[in-house]
Amino acid sequence: MSKDKELHVPAGYLFASAEAGLRKHGAGPDLALMYSTVPAQAAAVFTTNRVQAAPVLLSKQRIRKSPVAQAILVNAGNANCATGPEGMAAARATTNVASGLLNIPLNSTLVASTGVIGVPFDARLVTDQLPSMVRQLHPEGCVGVSHAILTTDTVPKMASRSLRIRGKSVKLLGMCKGSGMIYPRMATMLGFFFTDAAVEPGYLKRATKRMADLTFNRISIDGDTSTNDTLFLLANGMAGNRPLREGHPESQEFFAMLVDLAQELAIALVRDGEGATKVAEIRVEGSRTEKQAEAIARAVALSPLVKTAIAGADPNWGRIICAAGYAGVELNPANVDIYLNRLQVCKSGGAAAFDEAAASRLLTARDIVIRIVIGDGKAAVRFWTCDFTNEYIRINSSYRT
Amino acid sequence: MSKDKELHVPAGYLFASAEAGLRKHGAGPDLALMYSTVPAQAAAVFTTNRVQAAPVLLSKQRIRKSPVAQAILVNAGNANCATGPEGMAAARATTNVASGLLNIPLNSTLVASTGVIGVPFDARLVTDQLPSMVRQLHPEGCVGVSHAILTTDTVPKMASRSLRIRGKSVKLLGMCKGSGMIYPRMATMLGFFFTDAAVEPGYLKRATKRMADLTFNRISIDGDTSTNDTLFLLANGMAGNRPLREGHPESQEFFAMLVDLAQELAIALVRDGEGATKVAEIRVEGSRTEKQAEAIARAVALSPLVKTAIAGADPNWGRIICAAGYAGVELNPANVDIYLNRLQVCKSGGAAAFDEAAASRLLTARDIVIRIVIGDGKAAVRFWTCDFTNEYIRINSSYRT
Repeated sequence: MSKDKELHVPAGYLFASAEAGLRKHGAGPDLALMYSTVPAQAAAVFTTNRVQAAPVLLSKQRIRKSPVAQAILVNAGNANCATGPEGMAAARATTNVASGLLNIPLNSTLVASTGVIGVPFDARLVTDQLPSMVRQLHPEGCVGVSHAILTTDTVPKMASRSLRIRGKSVKLLGMCKGSGMIYPRMATMLGFFFTDAAVEPGYLKRATKRMADLTFNRISIDGDTSTNDTLFLLANGMAGNRPLREGHPESQEFFAMLVDLAQELAIALVRDGEGATKVAEIRVEGSRTEKQAEAIARAVALSPLVKTAIAGADPNWGRIICAAGYAGVELNPANVDIYLNRLQVCKSGGAAAFDEAAASRLLTARDIVIRIVIGDGKAAVRFWTCDFTNEYIRINSSYRT
Repeated sequence: MSKDKELHVPAGYLFASAEAGLRKHGAGPDLALMYSTVPAQAAAVFTTNRVQAAPVLLSKQRIRKSPVAQAILVNAGNANCATGPEGMAAARATTNVASGLLNIPLNSTLVASTGVIGVPFDARLVTDQLPSMVRQLHPEGCVGVSHAILTTDTVPKMASRSLRIRGKSVKLLGMCKGSGMIYPRMATMLGFFFTDAAVEPGYLKRATKRMADLTFNRISIDGDTSTNDTLFLLANGMAGNRPLREGHPESQEFFAMLVDLAQELAIALVRDGEGATKVAEIRVEGSRTEKQAEAIARAVALSPLVKTAIAGADPNWGRIICAAGYAGVELNPANVDIYLNRLQVCKSGGAAAFDEAAASRLLTARDIVIRIVIGDGKAAVRFWTCDFTNEYIRINSSYRT
């Protein structure tokens, strides 16, 4: 697998972006069109929120009906959520215009939105831009797209990988945006993955779900699950490989590449979390089951007291064991060891003899590993969170007004 | 029921406080002794955290063995949690000394601690103070006690009520402390309730649990559930009433007084939440069950995005319906109406026509009601939360260091 900095745009994908004026505070592109020159197998993961935005409902319908897609229309600035039947009509209208201009079946344009909830969605702002966007579609347009999908993000998040499968070059491109309402089980996380590999639909679906569970569903910024979370993976087969399916050795290689790329982007989301200055990797080891380990990691990653301690470089391991204790799973405190990087701060549920100043210094780094060893079994998980700073409060108490 | 400002100290209770030097930043009383001159029926509610402090484990043991107690020993500054067998020995030793000095059975002193987790507990600091504290026991000592139990709280929380039951005057006194790690299902919330009513033990236990569920378990400051949460209710019978039991009409009056007092104190906890400047009452109405209503109220009360919007006086009802949507219970967004005080901001899941400036003005008040009407049934709950400000971050990123 190649992980160099060069951008490997998979064969057959074209991109365009534009400024539609959907953002309240104007300025900058806010609309993106992503297109595969041939129909692609499509898989998706959506928010688990009971309140779902129109684009989520529409894309879900379309993928359920047929897991084949050829275009994705995305906007920032307006979530098109809690906008009633008019919102649904707007999602339908904008995708219909895109499909028409691209000359593809109506159902093969998927859609995603992010931004403010509850503001009427003006479809005209989008459709006015589409004709010129279709003319501008280009492989390198992905760079502009990675900017157009952002909201409170401060940097775009895009990366790629390539891999040789039985003599064929397979490429994978991913981009995503955060950066508030970020919580496992998806967040106003939008993620778009494109590969030119040929992939059997059932396998693509399972691989996409498992990839999300191992990466985007194991990060947290603020614990709010958005109404708009969407992750799409398109596979257009233009690499000409034998279609990947369960059990093929090359499928494992492909899946490893997918998880590796998604993990890079997931960590980039956390790093760009609202107000974040540090990324903490929470490793829980020695649990009886992966589920138990994940519950503990999630509780620690979500604890405002742990997150503010990280902000303040305070090696307050008591808050860590406390959060582990309320994770809702069995835990014998006497079996718990905790490490900050390699420094042991808690031994058998009590204080280890450690140098407070050295521990505090560790916590001033941009990257921190909090390792919690349970001693009940062999399951382990990793989970990523950020520190909780004044800046988060500032951003979110003045987002709209 | 009398709710005047006068302090009604129930008959037979004496209190004392002292400075034992348990706080890192010295200064001020940190130790409290509460005593009933006759044995009292005792009921308790403890943290649900799997990591439980020594005082919690010890008090739980004692109350389970016999629901009769005569003294409560409480300290701030050190949680005596994650302190191993030595911590348990310290809890036992300090209560044994108290029982000895008071000349009561060893098991009839209960204990509670709050403060930093994982710091060895020096029993000597406590036992050195006990002889003089026993000498100073006095009904009006409760005022000093209400100060001694505080940690990051900025004001003491104490209130009382009285009631005539079949010609007998029954008094109820309550005090509690917060103010971080405050979350329903108990928090490093310590609460102490004393009544001179005679109450049948089984009824006392059920009434205490239900009272906590309706009040202290329906507040949230930061969503962290502490290792030390403890609520005690002692009933020493000195009022001479016929013992209250299930089904007595006067039991209902007593229970109403208990809930009324606990609610006043619970709201006082929220108002004094770390960094809080406002209290928001989340009312969920029209749910099918109380459990569903509570899940929705809890999700809204805990959402950092809702809490920062309240801080910023931003009538961003989209964040409210979003949080309701991820509460994990069935919800049809098209049936949801939302009001800020009496101003409707969301109608049938979409934007209501309302004056943004007026809505924002409402949110600058110290007390706000967020009313969420679901339209599925008749169950309703109230839940209390506070805004989320920079001050919370400041307090918690520098608590220890």
